[in-house]
Amino acid sequence: MSDAYPFAKGHGTENDFVLLPDPDGTVHVDLTAGRVRALTDRRAGLGGDGVLRVVRTEAVDEARGQDAEWFMDYRNADGSLSEMCGNGIRVFGRYLVEEGWADPTRPLPIATRDGVKTLRFDGPDITVDMGAPRLLGETVIGVGGWEWSARHVDMGNPHAVAFVEDLDDAGPLREAPLHDPATYPHGVNVEFVQRRAPHHVAMRVHERGSGETRSCGTGACAVMVATAVADDAERGTPYRIDLPGGTLRVTWTTEDRVLMTGPAVIVGRGTTSL
Amino acid sequence: MSDAYPFAKGHGTENDFVLLPDPDGTVHVDLTAGRVRALTDRRAGLGGDGVLRVVRTEAVDEARGQDAEWFMDYRNADGSLSEMCGNGIRVFGRYLVEEGWADPTRPLPIATRDGVKTLRFDGPDITVDMGAPRLLGETVIGVGGWEWSARHVDMGNPHAVAFVEDLDDAGPLREAPLHDPATYPHGVNVEFVQRRAPHHVAMRVHERGSGETRSCGTGACAVMVATAVADDAERGTPYRIDLPGGTLRVTWTTEDRVLMTGPAVIVGRGTTSL
Repeated sequence: MSDAYPFAKGHGTENDFVLLPDPDGTVHVDLTAGRVRALTDRRAGLGGDGVLRVVRTEAVDEARGQDAEWFMDYRNADGSLSEMCGNGIRVFGRYLVEEGWADPTRPLPIATRDGVKTLRFDGPDITVDMGAPRLLGETVIGVGGWEWSARHVDMGNPHAVAFVEDLDDAGPLREAPLHDPATYPHGVNVEFVQRRAPHHVAMRVHERGSGETRSCGTGACAVMVATAVADDAERGTPYRIDLPGGTLRVTWTTEDRVLMTGPAVIVGRGTTSL
Repeated sequence: MSDAYPFAKGHGTENDFVLLPDPDGTVHVDLTAGRVRALTDRRAGLGGDGVLRVVRTEAVDEARGQDAEWFMDYRNADGSLSEMCGNGIRVFGRYLVEEGWADPTRPLPIATRDGVKTLRFDGPDITVDMGAPRLLGETVIGVGGWEWSARHVDMGNPHAVAFVEDLDDAGPLREAPLHDPATYPHGVNVEFVQRRAPHHVAMRVHERGSGETRSCGTGACAVMVATAVADDAERGTPYRIDLPGGTLRVTWTTEDRVLMTGPAVIVGRGTTSL
């Protein structure tokens, strides 16, 4: 085990991650797509929807200059880079606090490939300021010969939000839904939404690069924004979003910020040679 | 993390396990069914098809008296006890060797709820003497309205082996196959077998308590025995068994022992508070 390096595992609403602590960028593990796939493999590896490298901003060329001590270097399970992950960043923040690397009594800025995000800690919950949404019109999504109109929402990463009568309508979602490559040249995260009650919806999500997951933070935000627009809801109205892996609460503020609140836990830590 | 306790994770042909090292039975973690389910949960936990507690035989009332230093205390993912696991015992043996608790140049006896099993190490492969099979006649298995005749083979745990034209015939196997409760009062592991070449088959398995898995060691042995009987094969003929998670080699000796050979790897180790 001479080549062993540290890891941790954690999840937010069952969107789960392998964390690779590398505070000073001195862990010489090449994060190839193959290694990310090996780490996230649910039988032969440690298992996860993605990998979060925990590294100081100043140690990473692409992140240096962002006004935050820590950089969330996020990879999808297939090894591709990703801009941002709303559940991942809560897990990332929880890990920093448990390691004593961040102070939970103060707002915590974190650098990402989508810029700096700020976390606030409140017991088991963490609130993330996910920034301003961009509403980019309507598009069409297809699964198994069926099509739905969908709202194009950008939360730093691209989403297509389709309202359905029943979440089962989308079927088993074993493959990526069909989408317009002109609208989404780099792929898209697709959400299916069913209404439950006023300001309360349930959703499923297919994440590009990861397949269907138990939860997706930016997806929950995109769903809230699309629902609030459909409802013509007053800004500041909190929405409850039920996902297969748990519940998130999302508010779109009068300052055009999307605040997402949910739990995050670290379940283990150790070393691996994968 | 004051209540953290050690774990490791490993797999054999992608049948994966959370190992809980407790050599002297002094780790005060109550292995309730709920805790086993939390540990094996693939999103909210560490993930695995089962839990292997690594404990000395003399520290366990139910194992004391077996002629082996180590006892494999195996639990299915649902928390139920199990007699034996052919992939799990290789992972168990690999862990003992990596910890320096066993000598890989000598045969290694391991106590289980099905008696003492002996491992032999050969590079990446480990051979397990799985004991004598018991052939107990024919039975019937049902999935989704279809029925197959199946051979009842006992490898310390109960199996029903059904030959199919195509492994896809059994469908997604989301639920336990129907079986005769008089034949299998405690449930049954069900294997579907497709022939590939002489002395070479492919299989899928539904394990009681775990669902469909990538591999099952006793299942591969039961499949080999049922196929050898159907082939009227000479004893000592090695069979290749392809499973979704890899390949095992199984030989039924002239001494009526089933020897199974395959890989086993430890992919990580650390501590958890689950």
